[in-house]
Amino acid sequence: MRAIGKKVRRIDAIEKAFGKAKFTNDMNFPKMLYASVVYPGVAHGILRSLNVEKAKEVEGVVKIATYKDVPNNEMGIVTKDMHVLVPVGGKIRFEADPIALIAAETKEAAEEAAELVEFEVEELKPVLTIDEALKDDPIVNGERNAAFHRKIRRGDIEKAFEESDLVIEMDFETGYQEHAYLEPQSVVAWWDGNTLTVYGSMQCPFYVHNDVAEVLKLPLNKVTVVQMETGGGFGGKEDVPSYIAVKAALLSYLTKRPVKLIYSRDMDFRETSKRHPSKSHYKVGFTKDGKLKAVKATVYLDMGAYSTLTPIVMYRSVTHAASAYDVKNVFVDVYGVYTNKVPTGAFRGFGSPQVLFAMERIMDEAAKKLGIDPWEIRYKNALEIGKETATGHLLEESVGAKETLEIVKEISDYDNLKEEVKKFNEGNKYKKRGLGWSHIIYGVSLGAAGQFLDASSGEVHVKMDGSVLVMIGGTEMGQGAKTVMALIVSEILGVDVENVRVMQPNTSIVQDSGPTVASRTTVFSGNAVRIAAERIRDNIIDYLKSSGAEDIKVENGYWIVDGKEIPFSEIAREANAANVKLAEMGWFSTPRLKYDFETGTGEAYVSYTFSTQLSLVEVDLLTGRVELKEAWVSHDIGKVLNPVGAEGQVEGGVVQGMGYAISEEIKHDEKGRMIVTNFNNYIVPSIRDIPKVHVKFVESPFSKGPFGAKGLGEPSLMSSPPSIANAVSDALGIPMNRLPITPEEVLLRL
Amino acid sequence: MRAIGKKVRRIDAIEKAFGKAKFTNDMNFPKMLYASVVYPGVAHGILRSLNVEKAKEVEGVVKIATYKDVPNNEMGIVTKDMHVLVPVGGKIRFEADPIALIAAETKEAAEEAAELVEFEVEELKPVLTIDEALKDDPIVNGERNAAFHRKIRRGDIEKAFEESDLVIEMDFETGYQEHAYLEPQSVVAWWDGNTLTVYGSMQCPFYVHNDVAEVLKLPLNKVTVVQMETGGGFGGKEDVPSYIAVKAALLSYLTKRPVKLIYSRDMDFRETSKRHPSKSHYKVGFTKDGKLKAVKATVYLDMGAYSTLTPIVMYRSVTHAASAYDVKNVFVDVYGVYTNKVPTGAFRGFGSPQVLFAMERIMDEAAKKLGIDPWEIRYKNALEIGKETATGHLLEESVGAKETLEIVKEISDYDNLKEEVKKFNEGNKYKKRGLGWSHIIYGVSLGAAGQFLDASSGEVHVKMDGSVLVMIGGTEMGQGAKTVMALIVSEILGVDVENVRVMQPNTSIVQDSGPTVASRTTVFSGNAVRIAAERIRDNIIDYLKSSGAEDIKVENGYWIVDGKEIPFSEIAREANAANVKLAEMGWFSTPRLKYDFETGTGEAYVSYTFSTQLSLVEVDLLTGRVELKEAWVSHDIGKVLNPVGAEGQVEGGVVQGMGYAISEEIKHDEKGRMIVTNFNNYIVPSIRDIPKVHVKFVESPFSKGPFGAKGLGEPSLMSSPPSIANAVSDALGIPMNRLPITPEEVLLRL
Repeated sequence: MRAIGKKVRRIDAIEKAFGKAKFTNDMNFPKMLYASVVYPGVAHGILRSLNVEKAKEVEGVVKIATYKDVPNNEMGIVTKDMHVLVPVGGKIRFEADPIALIAAETKEAAEEAAELVEFEVEELKPVLTIDEALKDDPIVNGERNAAFHRKIRRGDIEKAFEESDLVIEMDFETGYQEHAYLEPQSVVAWWDGNTLTVYGSMQCPFYVHNDVAEVLKLPLNKVTVVQMETGGGFGGKEDVPSYIAVKAALLSYLTKRPVKLIYSRDMDFRETSKRHPSKSHYKVGFTKDGKLKAVKATVYLDMGAYSTLTPIVMYRSVTHAASAYDVKNVFVDVYGVYTNKVPTGAFRGFGSPQVLFAMERIMDEAAKKLGIDPWEIRYKNALEIGKETATGHLLEESVGAKETLEIVKEISDYDNLKEEVKKFNEGNKYKKRGLGWSHIIYGVSLGAAGQFLDASSGEVHVKMDGSVLVMIGGTEMGQGAKTVMALIVSEILGVDVENVRVMQPNTSIVQDSGPTVASRTTVFSGNAVRIAAERIRDNIIDYLKSSGAEDIKVENGYWIVDGKEIPFSEIAREANAANVKLAEMGWFSTPRLKYDFETGTGEAYVSYTFSTQLSLVEVDLLTGRVELKEAWVSHDIGKVLNPVGAEGQVEGGVVQGMGYAISEEIKHDEKGRMIVTNFNNYIVPSIRDIPKVHVKFVESPFSKGPFGAKGLGEPSLMSSPPSIANAVSDALGIPMNRLPITPEEVLLRL
Repeated sequence: MRAIGKKVRRIDAIEKAFGKAKFTNDMNFPKMLYASVVYPGVAHGILRSLNVEKAKEVEGVVKIATYKDVPNNEMGIVTKDMHVLVPVGGKIRFEADPIALIAAETKEAAEEAAELVEFEVEELKPVLTIDEALKDDPIVNGERNAAFHRKIRRGDIEKAFEESDLVIEMDFETGYQEHAYLEPQSVVAWWDGNTLTVYGSMQCPFYVHNDVAEVLKLPLNKVTVVQMETGGGFGGKEDVPSYIAVKAALLSYLTKRPVKLIYSRDMDFRETSKRHPSKSHYKVGFTKDGKLKAVKATVYLDMGAYSTLTPIVMYRSVTHAASAYDVKNVFVDVYGVYTNKVPTGAFRGFGSPQVLFAMERIMDEAAKKLGIDPWEIRYKNALEIGKETATGHLLEESVGAKETLEIVKEISDYDNLKEEVKKFNEGNKYKKRGLGWSHIIYGVSLGAAGQFLDASSGEVHVKMDGSVLVMIGGTEMGQGAKTVMALIVSEILGVDVENVRVMQPNTSIVQDSGPTVASRTTVFSGNAVRIAAERIRDNIIDYLKSSGAEDIKVENGYWIVDGKEIPFSEIAREANAANVKLAEMGWFSTPRLKYDFETGTGEAYVSYTFSTQLSLVEVDLLTGRVELKEAWVSHDIGKVLNPVGAEGQVEGGVVQGMGYAISEEIKHDEKGRMIVTNFNNYIVPSIRDIPKVHVKFVESPFSKGPFGAKGLGEPSLMSSPPSIANAVSDALGIPMNRLPITPEEVLLRL
């Protein structure tokens, strides 16, 4: 292949490096207003009064919106459990539950006025932990705090425990994670009296599209949402941009002027969703030779004040709770629990890191107890073609699980490495090294719970000079989607990658293509684009044949027609003049998955990525600091379309997973107010913390993926935390079952 | 049918009536600059020097562009015979041949600076008439002034004259016509360092797209052209907006700031193309019973300084020179001739009004000489299925020519009317009335000479709430294209017309769909949209059948599924959740026409519209003023999709044709400077001049048209001038063979 699998420069590299790429904050319009948001600063209470008179008097204030101004004040991506603006008499459920919006001629005026909005709150006892919440006193939202439940009931769990030689029971806890995208939430909305256009930093323009239309009660064909260049998402720009966009859109709707709303880092920390903290109890049975017999898990996810995507996040928690293994008896309960804190929701891995951490910790504990090498116990239980996943999905193709284990063992020179670590630990009193494995599964795309969203459109337009425009509904947020699309088109049409421009998604140009989440873009947008490009290629071939050509090949950037090399630009010009259809729209969806929601069994996802990671950590026993020295990773992603991009994804994922595992932590005070709201006290890995990451891919092709590809975005993070936690446990000889493993946590456990 | 053929409100009526529609001048961006253009004011000469130093000093001037700044200074839609900016040492060919461009912070600064650009011109003798030009002394442009030639050579013309009982020879002249669109040429261009976006008032965004890319040497996928609401075109916004757009685009390219260029009426008169003045000589042979034997014509079109679209305009002149009749011996020469005046080019009718006027005048003169009624002689020679057009195109369907003659005779109560006119004339000394017929043919779309452009794309996107977006490459410029598209979609999908939004054309959204000219939009964009809508309907039907439905009908805004009425919104929501493809791209082109350019014979166009008009005029013998009192018109347009819109087209066409026939006139002084440059001295019909127009359509379906429709935009004008000229000739008893028949012309001829 000439493009796929070759090393190329990102097609958006130059634009971004030279500052030409347009982010939301670059969008400016004449007469644009600036918005601010008024928060109550109280975690739980009843809003008793609201007075905007003083705020109105600030010079430059054009409009102050309260609940009375919202056409449809009910909001929420899955359940309508939120307000756009809390009404007087209504409940405030966390400190940053918006109560008013201000539009002013300047940002300063908007912020000054926000300070002057007067309100009274009757305070209620805030519910701040999962344990408190489960008492339902008070109830935070809805009818009970443990509002959502998903389960798996497979096999005979009790009988399996009876037949097990070893049963391990353990409790686990994980903390928040903030997405820490470079660019905070940002939107510009413009209702011109006729149509509404929203420009924003987002992953899912179609969500924003539906949500602003619903809040403003507009037909969908009068709303256009344009994804601007987006400085990182990681799930934090899945549903959240809808909640940001409706604010700006409402103010624009009321003023008929463009409105810009750019979140400060503090606002972004306080108001927008994080990764769910969790508590879980696992009970896992093994035979004496290490074969998994049974997995029973009860998992609570702290969803904060509003459910946002929790019901869907839980689907991934439940389906990934037993990780990547062949186990026939599975009994899982996952609960989503309301508390009076910041809502939690989508985050790279989407409910799986919490459970994979637990399950993978247990694999290590079992290996230790059974005297089996932790690699060995994983290999023994690994999935292969003909076996079934934990939900009972019979795997018929594309299972490179064991190969990833084999590769990591090989590239890490595992046996020698173990020796080296042993020697290091013998020679060092206050520094201890440890090795930790993880072996995980990742269900590609939305799966059975989200299949109604799982279709994508992609258009390819060949211009008469042979340059190409590609339109997709999937978004680029740094992960390299644009480059992958360009590679696919380049491969099929024989056009240079540099001559392919992938446009920013726009909901009025591309049909609803679902969200850009769940590592689905390569498969869904990629296939849609592949289909469109192939049709164009076939249209051209038909035309050339009708003009007498006999032997037509596309190779190395040239079309070879009856032995003669012709550049694509020439082909395009000729075909265009002959009225050949050089634009096509591809549409991709997958057959309906057979999944039983009652038992949580069946075909959970269309395909699976498998990953193995080995981490080498060093723990400073005096400071408690954990350092990830080196990591070896292998992912079976079906086919590597863009090697440089794929390696980058893995490196980034390992590091973001490392932050989650050892340094990132959000705390609240006793009244439920967040006390970690910036990068001074929220510790994300810096460039100096980045370890050596060795990556090697397995290509076990997925027949429905473009050129065989599956997804990579999320699993690249998911393998990292359990592997690191296992390595720290190994270094210390102590089971580290709580994340993050901060220096304080280490010192506490020593 | 539930939508097609029903009376509906234009879908853009409310937006336009309430000022919500966005025209180019409504586009404003931060840091936008304003442009002005420097003209030499000399009709013919060599630019010897250019000095912008003084102009630069005007406060607010940001950039002055001269020929040195243009990446590719050669321009022209058919032949590259123009410059973007005349270079020093190069030729100035008309008074408004641009020599410099200015971008400034304000319009005033730009205009002030334009006055201060210093230059020297070595003046040459200006060539101001066709007769002077034919001497080739001096040559205006290229190698000879009569630079372009098209012809028909069919049958044996000399033998046919020998066999004729009556041979009439006559000379004809026609004048300029200015498009007089409400909105002058307007554009905003923005090069952001990465991509170029052009917003403008235009008919043909794809022309602008190609032309700005060529001038700035950009790949087509980096240029986006958006047609804004357009206040009239009439051909004047076919190629001209390219020449306007490259000016703003160049200034934006040089400054990286948005640049707005809005033409004043004076600039628009002086610089932009008009309808070609013509001179022609006709020799036509008849049998004594009025049967046409031979048509020989030599036609000269004054194309001014640059050819613009003349080579294509001439294709319509040559193919329409013998009008709508069955005549086997045809010998036509049409020449395009350079002069040192404003370029001429596209104008509703596109080279046909000049020749139809001549031919139809001759039909009347023949009738008079042969003692046959002018209706009778037309009916006798009219085309019907099985006969051939003047180019020898055998007509196999959709020929309602005779029906249009029959209908006009009937609705005008012709025989009585003749009597009434006779009586009026007998009773009035200084006012004379006359009746005049015309019977014409119109070749729909671009025909053989432009078939490489004759394909169109159309997309239909059904949103999950059942609202619909339609994207076409054809433009709305007042003619009602959007409403026709909405009707087609409404008919096929059972969605309300008000729930269909037709987007403004955007070259990065819709594949090159050719120009919006030649009355092709209903057929080409309409068919593309029809195909897309039908596919979506079929996708939904397939899905409903796969879900168990058996009997599915689309009727009266409802889907009837197994007898149950279901609103389209519900169907859309359900189909969307099932991942049904609810967006489709239609593509329409027609089979290659067989036309021989050497002999000018064969299939000139894909189909033909036929029209008949009877005009009743009154001439004031004292003032010379001609008044069109009443007109009866019938057009065979295959199928009337939008009755209100179609009638409006005809009324507008009759009136614009009337302006051309009796009042609109452009004059130049002896140095070639235009002396009619505004609506004080260029007399367009006003509301008080509008006659009673009676319209009745013939529907002789065209199998390749959407629901059978053909084109109407141009023929609605074309029937008017010959009919009026014949009526005036009838009133005065004098052959009026020169247009316009102004009061001066009448008095001169009395």
